[in-house]
Amino acid sequence: MAEKFVSRRNIDFMINEVFDVASLNRFPYFEDHNEETFKMILDTAMKISTDMMYPYFKDMDVNPPHWEDGKVHCHKAIVPFLKEMGEGGWIQCEKPYDVGGQQLPLTVKEMAYFLFGAANYSMHVYPMLTAGAANLIYQFGTQEMKDMYLEKMYSGIWQGTMALTEPDVGSSLADLTTIAEPTDQGYYMIRGQKIFISAGNSDLADNVIHLLIAKLKDGPLGVPGISLFIVPEKRINENGELEDNDVQCGGIEHKLGYKGSPICQLTFGDEKNCRGWLVGELGKGLAQMFKMMNEERINIGIGAISKISGAYYAALEYAQQRKQGRKPDQKDPATPMVELIEHADIKRMLLFQKAVMEGSLALAIQLSLYQDLVTVGENAEENEMLVDFLIPILKTYPSEMGILATSAAIQVLGGYGFCGDFPVEQYYRDIRIDPIHEGTTGIQGQDILGRKVSMKKGKAFELYINEVERTIAEAKAYPELEKQISALESAVQLMKDLTAELLGKKAQITNEAFLADAVLYLDFMSQIAIAWQWLKLMTVSVKALKGQLTDQDKGFYQGKIYTGRYFYDYELTKIHSLAIRLRSEDRVTVEMTREYFED
Amino acid sequence: MAEKFVSRRNIDFMINEVFDVASLNRFPYFEDHNEETFKMILDTAMKISTDMMYPYFKDMDVNPPHWEDGKVHCHKAIVPFLKEMGEGGWIQCEKPYDVGGQQLPLTVKEMAYFLFGAANYSMHVYPMLTAGAANLIYQFGTQEMKDMYLEKMYSGIWQGTMALTEPDVGSSLADLTTIAEPTDQGYYMIRGQKIFISAGNSDLADNVIHLLIAKLKDGPLGVPGISLFIVPEKRINENGELEDNDVQCGGIEHKLGYKGSPICQLTFGDEKNCRGWLVGELGKGLAQMFKMMNEERINIGIGAISKISGAYYAALEYAQQRKQGRKPDQKDPATPMVELIEHADIKRMLLFQKAVMEGSLALAIQLSLYQDLVTVGENAEENEMLVDFLIPILKTYPSEMGILATSAAIQVLGGYGFCGDFPVEQYYRDIRIDPIHEGTTGIQGQDILGRKVSMKKGKAFELYINEVERTIAEAKAYPELEKQISALESAVQLMKDLTAELLGKKAQITNEAFLADAVLYLDFMSQIAIAWQWLKLMTVSVKALKGQLTDQDKGFYQGKIYTGRYFYDYELTKIHSLAIRLRSEDRVTVEMTREYFED
Repeated sequence: MAEKFVSRRNIDFMINEVFDVASLNRFPYFEDHNEETFKMILDTAMKISTDMMYPYFKDMDVNPPHWEDGKVHCHKAIVPFLKEMGEGGWIQCEKPYDVGGQQLPLTVKEMAYFLFGAANYSMHVYPMLTAGAANLIYQFGTQEMKDMYLEKMYSGIWQGTMALTEPDVGSSLADLTTIAEPTDQGYYMIRGQKIFISAGNSDLADNVIHLLIAKLKDGPLGVPGISLFIVPEKRINENGELEDNDVQCGGIEHKLGYKGSPICQLTFGDEKNCRGWLVGELGKGLAQMFKMMNEERINIGIGAISKISGAYYAALEYAQQRKQGRKPDQKDPATPMVELIEHADIKRMLLFQKAVMEGSLALAIQLSLYQDLVTVGENAEENEMLVDFLIPILKTYPSEMGILATSAAIQVLGGYGFCGDFPVEQYYRDIRIDPIHEGTTGIQGQDILGRKVSMKKGKAFELYINEVERTIAEAKAYPELEKQISALESAVQLMKDLTAELLGKKAQITNEAFLADAVLYLDFMSQIAIAWQWLKLMTVSVKALKGQLTDQDKGFYQGKIYTGRYFYDYELTKIHSLAIRLRSEDRVTVEMTREYFED
Repeated sequence: MAEKFVSRRNIDFMINEVFDVASLNRFPYFEDHNEETFKMILDTAMKISTDMMYPYFKDMDVNPPHWEDGKVHCHKAIVPFLKEMGEGGWIQCEKPYDVGGQQLPLTVKEMAYFLFGAANYSMHVYPMLTAGAANLIYQFGTQEMKDMYLEKMYSGIWQGTMALTEPDVGSSLADLTTIAEPTDQGYYMIRGQKIFISAGNSDLADNVIHLLIAKLKDGPLGVPGISLFIVPEKRINENGELEDNDVQCGGIEHKLGYKGSPICQLTFGDEKNCRGWLVGELGKGLAQMFKMMNEERINIGIGAISKISGAYYAALEYAQQRKQGRKPDQKDPATPMVELIEHADIKRMLLFQKAVMEGSLALAIQLSLYQDLVTVGENAEENEMLVDFLIPILKTYPSEMGILATSAAIQVLGGYGFCGDFPVEQYYRDIRIDPIHEGTTGIQGQDILGRKVSMKKGKAFELYINEVERTIAEAKAYPELEKQISALESAVQLMKDLTAELLGKKAQITNEAFLADAVLYLDFMSQIAIAWQWLKLMTVSVKALKGQLTDQDKGFYQGKIYTGRYFYDYELTKIHSLAIRLRSEDRVTVEMTREYFED
């Protein structure tokens, strides 16, 4: 196993030097926090990651949960971790003091979650999902519900899930078939099947609280018929005891990666004795669930970045130690071999991973910071629009590019990368779920092109452009960055032009044709968003390099500048090819028919 | 499991309609072959694939070989398959009649191997490697060696391997440490370790014949010191009996995919009793091994294409059957859901897989056909240059793009794609070895930019351009192809200009800087080579569509035209971004230092 899976120092650089997250303490909500409290919290998170999580990264993959007699049996290393999560308040740390939270900026919570994800994502997912489910109750539940569930969930004693997917319903959620039938007892009778429910059953928690969407019996078709329910695995009877709520786990999936977390098939109400309690308004189920979904999409993006980080540091460590061959200008076989990291092509692959990982991490912090401003009501409407606009990018870019980044990590190790003795092949398997769950890449593409760019008459897009232009303006103080500034200025212009062209054509073509290349558009937008963040990182680093620095610090900031140079030359340039296709009038993917696939 | 893993019809289309392989019977060597014999052979290969191989595709993954008491125990389904391979003459079918071959065009053999690889690559690899090892003996061995080994290897009773990699020597073969010490008995004493040796030990074969490279004791450093040896697991004593040759298997690797084939750690001469017999000339080991390596690189490329094929047909079948959502212009939730294949983004992902797979397959046939012309001495020098020039492309493009193609297959299936119940996740794992073994992508990049484009004063490159231009000239009879013709003409011009620029700069920069982006150059060249093949496929299809056709045939040819349109718009366009980077003077991957990676 590699020693390092994450750079603690880089997180400090990001939250202090680049984003100055501590300045949030100008708002009363965050007034107790500062760089010192952040450091304490992140040091603790690092210790948990290193001591309780990473040692089980491989073991949880090799010994995944198994299903027996209706129950999922999980790895025992998760027990002390969940206890720590509960006792340390990690599940609700961003919440107000009065509900047991620590009023921590989401930005800092997300960085702790990033550490957890890099150390052992399959372990991290248990508290992460509980946090998401609890948040739905926190936001939309009655006081009674909050009293009944939140404390147990925050303490890690009860697990939470989101139960959306069904055997025949994946991306098309409005077609779900799980039924909720009203009673006059204040609850609904639930009946249906859900699949792919992460941590949907386990022997670790006393109870599992499903936040489930179901269709009201005889209710309207589609979205307006869907409501959100709390469906506990065990319900609380009048004596305050837990009793069976007719939720059965019929098995778990055997899967490519992400093996430490059981993905469950669940049956609700097989014996007509499953009760659910409506959360929020009837018919608002999807809208409410999407509150949680947005949060989960941020978590998925950050989880993907964390896996890239784990694979990158394993590849870096290997490249620093393993000797192989000589530089191309050294032909003498009597000279000693050099470490892999001396080879330009190896450095190219490492720079790729570093560029994707750190650029995405900056975007994640940027987005979380907007969210923190929403929390305290600072330009809340604008900041919320920025969050909404950037979510499909943060969800997708690290998930999709993570396939290639972890693949590059394998390639750095060569044959050893393909073997189970090194962790990179597991990161490669683990990350492959990220472009699928919580909204596929196709769904994210439709979101940005079909909704986000034209949302509120293009206001969100406009705000985003202002943000990028502000970064460019700040960078202009440093002539060293002229090349990148000019590339980003052209890219922004191309983004404006291309988006206007696409939206301009929209009225003349079908919606199908308009959205056919939405995934390419999302890729195009993502490259620019990551370039924006890299200009920010480079600017801070150029500035830092003008001061008195140790050699180590100099190396650190130079590393940022070189990686930014890499990103602009090798990655951002991809927008030009994407733009050629996005401008093409050949609607081949629309016109292709199913018959033409026959052969 | 999906029903289909390959299109038999498409192979007939390729070898008959596109490449007219049967016209090879104008040469005496191939005079007994025609479309009918090809059909019989390929039908038999299809039956073997369907009946003996594909049924064990998953089972061999779930129940991989295990190592116990120095022996590797393999899946028993391989036994009847190896018998069939031996009895059917599949290992040496391209060889002359007088050594038991069938004088079959390599082109047709490769298509049979393509079928085997798609059905179960891990099973296919046993005879494939034996064929490669036997070929080395066939080409460079003495008559005595041929008599001793070939019949047993051709009959599948003895397994063959190529033993190159060592614990500290991967890509840098010239640094190997396995030692061969001459004796006065006509053999050498071999001592050393090899790792990652596919099928290097098993309970399936009576003997394993290693074609091993080793350094002559006290010989010169580097390449001139390396020779090729036959090192059998069991040597034949004076009584014609097999006796132990001091070759031990110390274990096998647990790996990401390709699990059905054991990858062995081997120790030679631990008890100072391992004999090896020199093959060919002393000091020519690497050059001779590269004869076999070229063949294996073709096999790796074709193997990668076959895995893309298996994943593609599984994804296609799923998309044809699974209903999900509605088209973007249909908002009414009361209308029925449509099959996935009706969605443009799903079609885009399927077209991507089909375009990569069929374009690569055409290139594989093209290259094999050049090789068949070499065999009969038809413009042998030119055709051999074309083979050499195209090998790095055929090895790499399907291997690297196959990661994305099989990933797209997973994405088509969504959550199910991530699960072991469907075959796509296995193809995704299996294909990941292909950019690594038999020369990594980095090695292939250096090969094309560092050697092939300037080989024989650029003659190979020139011949290649002539071939592409001939295809363009033929396509010009069809105005329907105007867009693609013009795109390929521009691409060829860009290829000439860019290559001249890069070679022009070579004298002013270090070799390291010259080769730093060799992998990007290879990608650039590959896109154009595949576009060349697609223009060929489109031309044949446009022509066919002018005749009287059944609806099914019309669909088949239309499918080619749409897939070609897809390739030109979505894939070939990538060369423009690549060219931007390839022209950049920012040598960031060279200048980046190991210190700057520290953080």
